[in-house]
Amino acid sequence: MKNTEKTMEKIVALCKGRGFVFAGSEIYGGLANTWDYGPLGVELKNNVKKAWWKKFVQENHYNVGLDAAILMNPQVWVASGHVGGFSDPLMDCKECKERFRADKVIEDWCAEHDFTLPKPVDALSQAEMKAFVDEHQIPCPSCGKHNWTDIRQFNLMFKTFQGVTEDAKNTVYLRPETAQGIFVNFQNVQRTTRKKLPFGVCQVGKSFRNEITPGNFTFRTREFEQMELEFFCQPGTELEWFNYWKQFCHQWLLDLGMKDENLRLRDHDPEELSHYSNATTDFEFVFPFGWGELWGVASRTNFDLTQHQNTSGKDMTYFDQEKNEHYIPYVIEPSLGADRVTLAFLIDAYDEEVVDAAKNDVRTVLRLHPALAPFKCAVLPLSKKLGDKAMEIRDMLAKDFMVDYDEAGSIGKRYRRQDEIGTPFCVTVDFQTVGTDTEEADHCVTVRDRDTMEQVRMPISELKAYLAEKMAF
Amino acid sequence: MKNTEKTMEKIVALCKGRGFVFAGSEIYGGLANTWDYGPLGVELKNNVKKAWWKKFVQENHYNVGLDAAILMNPQVWVASGHVGGFSDPLMDCKECKERFRADKVIEDWCAEHDFTLPKPVDALSQAEMKAFVDEHQIPCPSCGKHNWTDIRQFNLMFKTFQGVTEDAKNTVYLRPETAQGIFVNFQNVQRTTRKKLPFGVCQVGKSFRNEITPGNFTFRTREFEQMELEFFCQPGTELEWFNYWKQFCHQWLLDLGMKDENLRLRDHDPEELSHYSNATTDFEFVFPFGWGELWGVASRTNFDLTQHQNTSGKDMTYFDQEKNEHYIPYVIEPSLGADRVTLAFLIDAYDEEVVDAAKNDVRTVLRLHPALAPFKCAVLPLSKKLGDKAMEIRDMLAKDFMVDYDEAGSIGKRYRRQDEIGTPFCVTVDFQTVGTDTEEADHCVTVRDRDTMEQVRMPISELKAYLAEKMAF
Repeated sequence: MKNTEKTMEKIVALCKGRGFVFAGSEIYGGLANTWDYGPLGVELKNNVKKAWWKKFVQENHYNVGLDAAILMNPQVWVASGHVGGFSDPLMDCKECKERFRADKVIEDWCAEHDFTLPKPVDALSQAEMKAFVDEHQIPCPSCGKHNWTDIRQFNLMFKTFQGVTEDAKNTVYLRPETAQGIFVNFQNVQRTTRKKLPFGVCQVGKSFRNEITPGNFTFRTREFEQMELEFFCQPGTELEWFNYWKQFCHQWLLDLGMKDENLRLRDHDPEELSHYSNATTDFEFVFPFGWGELWGVASRTNFDLTQHQNTSGKDMTYFDQEKNEHYIPYVIEPSLGADRVTLAFLIDAYDEEVVDAAKNDVRTVLRLHPALAPFKCAVLPLSKKLGDKAMEIRDMLAKDFMVDYDEAGSIGKRYRRQDEIGTPFCVTVDFQTVGTDTEEADHCVTVRDRDTMEQVRMPISELKAYLAEKMAF
Repeated sequence: MKNTEKTMEKIVALCKGRGFVFAGSEIYGGLANTWDYGPLGVELKNNVKKAWWKKFVQENHYNVGLDAAILMNPQVWVASGHVGGFSDPLMDCKECKERFRADKVIEDWCAEHDFTLPKPVDALSQAEMKAFVDEHQIPCPSCGKHNWTDIRQFNLMFKTFQGVTEDAKNTVYLRPETAQGIFVNFQNVQRTTRKKLPFGVCQVGKSFRNEITPGNFTFRTREFEQMELEFFCQPGTELEWFNYWKQFCHQWLLDLGMKDENLRLRDHDPEELSHYSNATTDFEFVFPFGWGELWGVASRTNFDLTQHQNTSGKDMTYFDQEKNEHYIPYVIEPSLGADRVTLAFLIDAYDEEVVDAAKNDVRTVLRLHPALAPFKCAVLPLSKKLGDKAMEIRDMLAKDFMVDYDEAGSIGKRYRRQDEIGTPFCVTVDFQTVGTDTEEADHCVTVRDRDTMEQVRMPISELKAYLAEKMAF
């Protein structure tokens, strides 16, 4: 019997084989851990972003959108703390010269030796990490010797130069997060939308972090896309809103079909919290390589706006008309990785279904929510002679949906090809549809459901409404 | 009488005042020519991108999508010619030390002196530029003296470092165009989609060019977004497809309401063509600051794929089953700036309409195509007492459209606010809608048209279909 276990190897092979994700710059041997979304991947990821925008902006009573530039004034990153403190603890093996993140070396060693740290590794100071490595004589993962340099901090921001000369004056950074683009525009957004607290600002965009050890396919990459909400509220109400957004985010994932058993919400311990945060929860998904963070929901107090007020000298307060007072709003930040959550939806949906054990017949099916599926349906003429009619139906549906068209191979093979890429419906055009010499056209098509494999016959004129209803999210 | 001339000052003021576009990093005094899209701007720009994707990918028979990484293997830019040749000719004024682009200095001088160059300035060699500057004793635009350094080439790619050390080995570039992400994936896309020639690959994404003199608001920025199609076809058919896509692009602009008299299609002269191109046309739009390029449509022969085949050593040929031969496809590239065309739509739509000359009553109205308008409609309760019903209607419509809600101020003022941001329809909820003690509810609303200002009364239940039909594109 075929092994139906869900592995990263299978996911990566499907992505490459069917056009979801290719290795970046592949013909040149790639570039570190960069990835390109292929024709199906770009649709899937765009659908994820659209579903987020729909619930967080379009339908939402509180939130509006924003799209800030990737290149920002370097003072932004001084104020935010990224110039001073956004770094990884690195150490080199003096024997083999390889370089590692100290926290990752400790984490991996603990996992291997079933050792439980008294607190999360992120909460350890640089000195505590060094002491732990020495105390346990943790060896180099490469050469096995224990001969480490001291730990030093390496800033994760990508640096570049704007203008003609490459000097400090012209240094700018690629943003390491989209959040600051929202904070610096707080007054612009409030003024132009005339929004009253509480209100939020949503942004989707690329961020860049010079990670030492990117990996696990699209899970951790140096260039990645974020979907962030900064929700501004009255001080004292922040924990209420923190819970509201935690629940809202959870529901968003479930509504898009993510299985709750593959999710866990991990509240940060007090010592793990950032100094400015009074509550943080990580949404984690169980990837084939283990639990990984998808969504961080953090109550950030008034830290960011206060930092910008102090650094820029510009007023960041909000005037509360009811209370007749000025104050700096508190902030709840649900921050989601678009690439990660796209990967999670793909893995969650991946299924190898035993159709007939005796014949060793297993079909691969991506059980994606129709709102996320790259193609909403595929139009399949039963014979090439029916191509004109099938293409006419494809064109009619393509006004509203992404539609595939396939006339190559047996109908069974074509169904399987669509199952594998998550197309929720196959629309089959046969001779009855158009009529023959002896039979009148019934102007109907057969619609096959990806998950149940059941087929229903319906008039072409009803197709659009039928599909639209199934896509609803 | 109020001056109703369309100027950049008015456009920029509207953008800032209503939340289309803010200066980037504004609270820190900005950063060169960076801009952030506000709550309305992000919707407008997203609608432009959606309209492009709809016609170029979703409905199209030939094309599929792609989303490649911004960071690519540096060899890509060696192959494409960007490492060797993507540069601006710079010269410094020895007197005041200011730095200029030689071609711009010449262009501005010619405009000022009504001087017609024998060929386009882009076609001049470095030596020809220097000779021209000296011959005409062109002065420094800053200090007025004529004492220039030699012209030298400055590469426009932003450079950064990936990994821990800042050396040549770790140098990577921010892509200066999205096109190469398509070329390097040519085989991946062809293999996974099983497309036969002709077919195209579409991509939307950020690119970066270290321009010496960015400017004119969002027209020329160092960070910008492109919408590019690379259309692969059989050699010998390229000029036919070149004309096809030129016409297709033109129609796309017209269908979205752009006025043809504000557009011109400028064919490149033979000496202006890139060495690999056998036809190029620039679509230009008349901005308040003059004609500016929107869309470049170029026939690029097999230059790019050949370069990648030679540099990577990987086969870039296509196997033509009908002809039973391998060849490198020819390419047509329509390349559109998303920020530029968004700005062009905004300017094209901007209108100050004299409502009543005697009263000096002028309304500002953005006559955007409904498919592009940030909000598809605004729901306006005539009285705050009607807020619940109005919000119920807003929520029903928001399932499908971006909808604004406004209950502040007189209805006339609210109409004008919506006119100014291009909302095509205002839905007014009055006491008849919900009924009063003496009158039964009629469950109808008044729908006001932005352009004609005409009002029709219709049942709430018909609203969605009415709006959907108007948005159709």
